[in-house]
Order: sequence, then C-alpha cells, then structure tokens
Amino acid sequence: MISVVLLGAGNVATHLYKAFMASNAVTVIQWYNRTYSSISSFANDVDTIDQLESLKEADIYIMAVSDDSISKLSQELPFENRLVAHTSGSVSIHDLDKKNQRAVFYPLQTFSKDAELDFCDIPICIEVTEKANMPFMKDLAEALGCKPYKINTEQRQTLHLSAVFVNNFTNQLYRIAHEISDAKNINFDILKPLILETAKKVQHMSPYSAQTGPAKRNDKKTIKRHLKQIESDEHKAIYDLLTASIKKAHGISIRSMTKKNK
Amino acid sequence: MISVVLLGAGNVATHLYKAFMASNAVTVIQWYNRTYSSISSFANDVDTIDQLESLKEADIYIMAVSDDSISKLSQELPFENRLVAHTSGSVSIHDLDKKNQRAVFYPLQTFSKDAELDFCDIPICIEVTEKANMPFMKDLAEALGCKPYKINTEQRQTLHLSAVFVNNFTNQLYRIAHEISDAKNINFDILKPLILETAKKVQHMSPYSAQTGPAKRNDKKTIKRHLKQIESDEHKAIYDLLTASIKKAHGISIRSMTKKNK
Repeated sequence: MISVVLLGAGNVATHLYKAFMASNAVTVIQWYNRTYSSISSFANDVDTIDQLESLKEADIYIMAVSDDSISKLSQELPFENRLVAHTSGSVSIHDLDKKNQRAVFYPLQTFSKDAELDFCDIPICIEVTEKANMPFMKDLAEALGCKPYKINTEQRQTLHLSAVFVNNFTNQLYRIAHEISDAKNINFDILKPLILETAKKVQHMSPYSAQTGPAKRNDKKTIKRHLKQIESDEHKAIYDLLTASIKKAHGISIRSMTKKNK
Repeated sequence: MISVVLLGAGNVATHLYKAFMASNAVTVIQWYNRTYSSISSFANDVDTIDQLESLKEADIYIMAVSDDSISKLSQELPFENRLVAHTSGSVSIHDLDKKNQRAVFYPLQTFSKDAELDFCDIPICIEVTEKANMPFMKDLAEALGCKPYKINTEQRQTLHLSAVFVNNFTNQLYRIAHEISDAKNINFDILKPLILETAKKVQHMSPYSAQTGPAKRNDKKTIKRHLKQIESDEHKAIYDLLTASIKKAHGISIRSMTKKNK
C-alpha cells in the first residue's frame, strides 16, 4: 500500500484526494493545507492538519499547490531525503528544494471543482531527479488507473502550452459560437453533438486529416459570406486568422488567391 | 413507410443513404447521381440512375449536392408540386425552384467519407415553404433517430458559421497543438483525453462557466512564458488574439493590465 501525504486544497488536490481514496493500492495518510477551513470537512476521513511540523512519514509528499507557492513550501518542509512531488505543468522540477528527492506528477486534464472527473485514462506526466524513483511514480499513476508518461521539464512546459490551445482556446471558440447563435435565438444544444464529434474524430485520426470546411476547400464564396455575417470585429479577426492558418497548413497559397480575386 | 429519392453522391448523400436504409420507417427507392460511377457499387441494393427523366414518384426528393448545384438541379427536375429538399447549411430555401414544394433538411454534423457516423442524436435543421409539410419533415428526421429543429434560413446560416468555429477552427487548434508537441517529440496521445473532456464539459455547462487557464486567471507570468515558448509567429498571433478574447469575455480590462505592467 502506497502512503501519500497531500499538500494543498485546490481543484487538483481535491480531485487527487478522491482518486487516491478510491484506489485500493494507495492511502492518503494526511492532508495538509495552510488554511485549515478548506479541508476541515474531510476531518472524519483523513488526518487533516495546518501545521507543517505535524507531517507524518509517508512514501510520497504530493504538493498540489499554486505554481508560485511550490518553491517556498518545498523549502519549509521539516524533513530531508524523502520523495516530494509537485503537480504543476509549468514549474521546473528544480524549483523543488534539493534537500529532498524530487519528482513531478502532472495530470494533464482540466479540473473543475464542480465537475466529477473519472481519473481513468488521464495521462500523468512524470519526471524524477533520482532515476530509481521512476518505477514507484509509474506505480502511483497506474494505481489511479492513469497512464504514466516519462516527460522532461521542457516537454511538460510544451504540453502545458499545447493544453492552452486544445482546452482554453477551444473552449473560447465554443463560447464565441454560443454568442453568435444566441444573437439569433438559436438553441446552443444544436451545436453540442458537433462539438463532441469534432473531439472524437481526432482520437483516431490526425487533426490534419480530420480537417474539412470552407478554408480547407478554399471556398472563397462561403468565407466571404461568413465574414459579412459576423458582427463583432473581434470575431472577424479570429475568423480571418484561423482561416489563414488552415489554408497555410493545407498548402493553399494566400498570395495567389489574392491575385485571382482581383 | 416514407419513400425517398436521393440525389447526389458526396459525404452527406452517402451517410444519409446508409442511415435511411438502416431505418424501418424509410426506404430509399432511387438514387440519382450525374456521374453514375460514384453510385454504381450500390446498384444491387437500390435503383441507381444518372438520368433525371427516370426519376420515380416519391414522398420526398432529397438533394445532397454541392451548394452551387442546388438551384440548377432543382430547375431541371422533370416534375412539379412534389416535395423537394436540399441539405445545405448556407443555401436559401428560395434557391430551390418554386415549381415544387420546398424544404431544407440540414444535418448539423461533420461528415467524412471514411469515418462511420451514428446518426442518433444528430440535430436536423428543418425549414419548409408550405407549413403543412413540417410534421412530415420532423417524422423523417425522427425516423433516423435524429432531433428535428425548426430553423429559418438566417438561423441556419448562423449555425453554419458557428459550426466553422466549433469544428474547423477547433480542429485547427488541435492541429497547432499537434505541431507544437511534435517539435519536442511528445506523443500527441497525451493530449487526446483533454481534447475529449473539453468537449464533454460543455455538454452540461456553458462554455463561459467552463473556462479555466492563464487568460481567465489573468496569469501574466504564464502568458509571458508561453509567448516566449512559441516559435511560430502565426501561432503567437493566435495565442495573443484568443487570450485577449478570453480576457474580454471575462471582464479583464486589457488597458488596465498594460498600465500595471509598466
């Protein structure tokens, strides 16, 4: 049985707590947070503390705290040579105080406090300073039903950036479609199956092969009509830029098109 | 039993043919295409023709042809006062020749020739010139297990535009993430669960509420580091524009931020 001490009480910490508690191979023996009230409701199920001096011995200390707190909190830990991991997509493993053995346990998923999340199949990006800890870190990920990947700091930071594109930016495109359709009294539900199918499609084919639509077809008539339909300058700029991006990716010369249009 | 004559042999026509054939309430009695070779492989299962004069009488004629062919083909139909529908997201119902009763049957989904598609739950946008045909059109959609929505031409064109945002543009963001991660030898599989979860999230909450990430948090440090990580000017421009769009949507003043940064 792997013993875990959890530090922090944000979305990631809360989801990790639930996932660890649901696993037969892991037990959370203690949960620390600087502000006790955030974890007090769990006091019946786990040893909850707000003093670092009370930390028990465990196989791993997982710091699911904000990026800016990682370095300082790792320095304040009142022990040495134990295994300490952070869960951040962007903070270097070397930001952890070197008095302990260091690791990263970064679950690449979107966490909301309200939304229930199945940890099954979530990719966990793992990095260690001591090679010998790698099998243990993989076991920990697999105990949650997750898929471990060995990922160095630079790769992890690239994944974090990529995640902004496929998650935050994609979600903003959903938001824009919501605004555009709302303005014409259209039920947003109509777009939901398309949103889901678009995401499903790239599970088994590349985004490049999955591309369709007016930009990919170089259908100038439709593009022109769409730009005429869009009322907001901001939405127009996004339409222009992403249309150009699709054309470029699919080898449609923008210059030659301009010539033809004259 | 509803009798359908299908015209056209593109992605939508082929998917509609399969879905109609799978339904117990609909039968395709004839399939027309100008180029016979595109439908000849179905000749054992359905009456396939390439001459409009051979068209049989049916409850509805569904023209799943390219936008530019709809008007001309509807004029060439050698009959009057029958029910004729097109399947386009952008063509007006009035582009159909008025010698027949006109309708639109627009399935809002992404169709690829290779990808199998479950018609179940696909929204069908329906428009009719004769009100009396509306219940029949709804029955036809429901016979496929689809959800019918009464949508006028302007709303349908808005949905077509919205679909470009949630499908083509979203897919291009996936493509960019693929490029960015490929450049650092990262397996794109790692991003796939996040892509799927992002789409699933907005099935039961609004994109506005679902938003997370550095732009929403106004996390300038992370945004600055991301922009430094991005190598392509095109990707940088997209990052900038969508970050600004998220900030605007969530009421983060861009001007006041600039001041603070000085």
